[in-house]
Amino acid sequence: MNLNIALLPGDGIGPEVLAQAVKCLQAVEETFNHTFTFKEAPVGAIAMEQKGTPLPEATLSLCLEADAVLFGAIGDPKYDSNPDAKVRPEQGLLQLRKALGLYANIRPVISHPTLLNKSPLKKEIIAGTDFVIFRELTGGIYFGEKKLNEEGTVASDLCEYSEDEVSRITHLAFKAAKARKKKVTLVDKANVLESSRLWRKVVTRIGESYPEVTLEHMFMDNAAMQIILNPTQFDVILTENMFGDILSDEGSVISGSIGLLASASIGDENALFEPIHGSYPQAKGKNIANPIASILSAAMLLEHFGLHEEAWAVKKAVDKSLKKGIVTIDLKSKSHHSTSQVGDFIAHNI
Amino acid sequence: MNLNIALLPGDGIGPEVLAQAVKCLQAVEETFNHTFTFKEAPVGAIAMEQKGTPLPEATLSLCLEADAVLFGAIGDPKYDSNPDAKVRPEQGLLQLRKALGLYANIRPVISHPTLLNKSPLKKEIIAGTDFVIFRELTGGIYFGEKKLNEEGTVASDLCEYSEDEVSRITHLAFKAAKARKKKVTLVDKANVLESSRLWRKVVTRIGESYPEVTLEHMFMDNAAMQIILNPTQFDVILTENMFGDILSDEGSVISGSIGLLASASIGDENALFEPIHGSYPQAKGKNIANPIASILSAAMLLEHFGLHEEAWAVKKAVDKSLKKGIVTIDLKSKSHHSTSQVGDFIAHNI
Ligand SMILES: CC(C)[C@H](C(=O)O)[C@@H](O)C(=O)O
Ligand SMILES: CC(C)[C@H](C(=O)O)[C@@H](O)C(=O)O
Repeated sequence: MNLNIALLPGDGIGPEVLAQAVKCLQAVEETFNHTFTFKEAPVGAIAMEQKGTPLPEATLSLCLEADAVLFGAIGDPKYDSNPDAKVRPEQGLLQLRKALGLYANIRPVISHPTLLNKSPLKKEIIAGTDFVIFRELTGGIYFGEKKLNEEGTVASDLCEYSEDEVSRITHLAFKAAKARKKKVTLVDKANVLESSRLWRKVVTRIGESYPEVTLEHMFMDNAAMQIILNPTQFDVILTENMFGDILSDEGSVISGSIGLLASASIGDENALFEPIHGSYPQAKGKNIANPIASILSAAMLLEHFGLHEEAWAVKKAVDKSLKKGIVTIDLKSKSHHSTSQVGDFIAHNI
Repeated sequence: MNLNIALLPGDGIGPEVLAQAVKCLQAVEETFNHTFTFKEAPVGAIAMEQKGTPLPEATLSLCLEADAVLFGAIGDPKYDSNPDAKVRPEQGLLQLRKALGLYANIRPVISHPTLLNKSPLKKEIIAGTDFVIFRELTGGIYFGEKKLNEEGTVASDLCEYSEDEVSRITHLAFKAAKARKKKVTLVDKANVLESSRLWRKVVTRIGESYPEVTLEHMFMDNAAMQIILNPTQFDVILTENMFGDILSDEGSVISGSIGLLASASIGDENALFEPIHGSYPQAKGKNIANPIASILSAAMLLEHFGLHEEAWAVKKAVDKSLKKGIVTIDLKSKSHHSTSQVGDFIAHNI
């Protein structure tokens, strides 16, 4: 297969971890006889420095032309501490999601048998966890109108959803559940929010056309609790943009490290793959960040194009590194390895 | 001291657990020679059935006249499953918070030494946890304009904050931190939300007038992770309405059961005390719900009026019940006791 892959390393540890994912894709290329073409472009804080904007036009067109985008990480603390900054790195990612129409962010959470003891949660709580979060990614409060009055004393964000926005990701979630454990849990705050009630109405209606899938409702506050009390109860979690952001970071503790969690962002015409972790600026350039989330994002990319055997080979190699303890410092193994050592090990085992 | 206390049992297990808190307050009355006058009124689903509205006027005036309100729980699944319902029980509580001006909801989270093994989190993670969440309670997306277009296909909620709303709870949080471990963590999503950036600006400015207190910033997604990865890092968590709702339910797993967590809702003129748990309709009338959150809410009420010794006596008695295993089924002790048995035990030990 020929694939044009746009590489967007971004900020912080983005470039380091992305480089390992590319190594692995190159190993797949060789082993399975594919042709992957990589083209790189800046996004985020680095793009602001180089081009004066977090999403340069050239970067966007590269992504639009590519078959898929592999994304590193975004964000720089320098902009966080300045609440008056008009432009910030994160806008690059948000604009990109919107421009590529990536309305569904898919985040699998599993407990690796070899890592059960790395989680702050007890083994018996997390063993057997295997769920996937379907987070709506181009709507809600992230993209609603933002206002600040002239005096700078009143600020607001609008959380808005339309039936169509809810409907398209809901179908994806039910289809996924059909092929999995046949349960969808809709997480909302329908006892307080009008937008949540729209979600509940639309999802309930669509659910009726998937009679083999059970639909459950859960309030977000309760879900934030249930996901750590009893994570094995979940199969597919379907939720709006911000709740999905929160739940997936929270859910990462189940796997033992946020450095393990990958995600796919899917639209009708484009797809982007990225770790769920941030730019981890403290680790930048130190060759200590965990590359596995980025490598597993590459595996999701392969999966997306139907390259199941190839994706499987990558996941197997990741498992091997975990089993052998060829891991970075976040996994607190007896000895630990650098980002590139872990990347090399995994690539060699593909 | 003479205190007029309005009792709002509400829905589900509310009446059962509130009755135990009243028992304890009566024990305090006797032991310490105070006069507490209790007057009861309906709120929530029960008020909708009896009076056609979740917050009857008589209930509101009772609360306005009282020195303090002791609240049970609210909510009924019958209304949750109907996204078209125009009125719902929860509005009773939201209107009450607004009408009483209860802008600060204070939720302490500690790990009881005797309950360390009840949490899904590992002992070594939670031991020594002692933080308090200051949740803004009368602003944000809970109270912003809600819209639904005529066709019912587009819905929205507005998250709005003014400088004054942020400022008053911020002062409370910094004052509390001054008397505690001298650290405030502001939780927001300032990399995406305009309202969060206002929070960050106002809180940072106010923080400068409390030089002995350290101010930290944390994004909400990261906070949802940090609170279970490393809960002992927190002292005072300051945040907006919905983030506070989510974080406090999540934080409850640290204590071993959500049935243990109390809260105080404070305004300039009124105060209300309630468990953080919901109405737990499955347990209604079964005499199995944990009354401790309600009893500890009564202790927070005593504290609020400067009755420190009295509050201490209640907390001591609660500790004794925990140590002796005189607890309800949620705490999975060898034998378990009913709601009223636990209430009796604690009241007798005051
Ligand atoms: C960087 C930030 C804007 C982003 C988000 O909140 O969506 C990140 O936290 C994520 O989850 O992908
Ligand atoms: C019942 C509900 C409206 C309420 C809230 O979300 O504020 C509850 O969850 C709470 O935390 O007190």
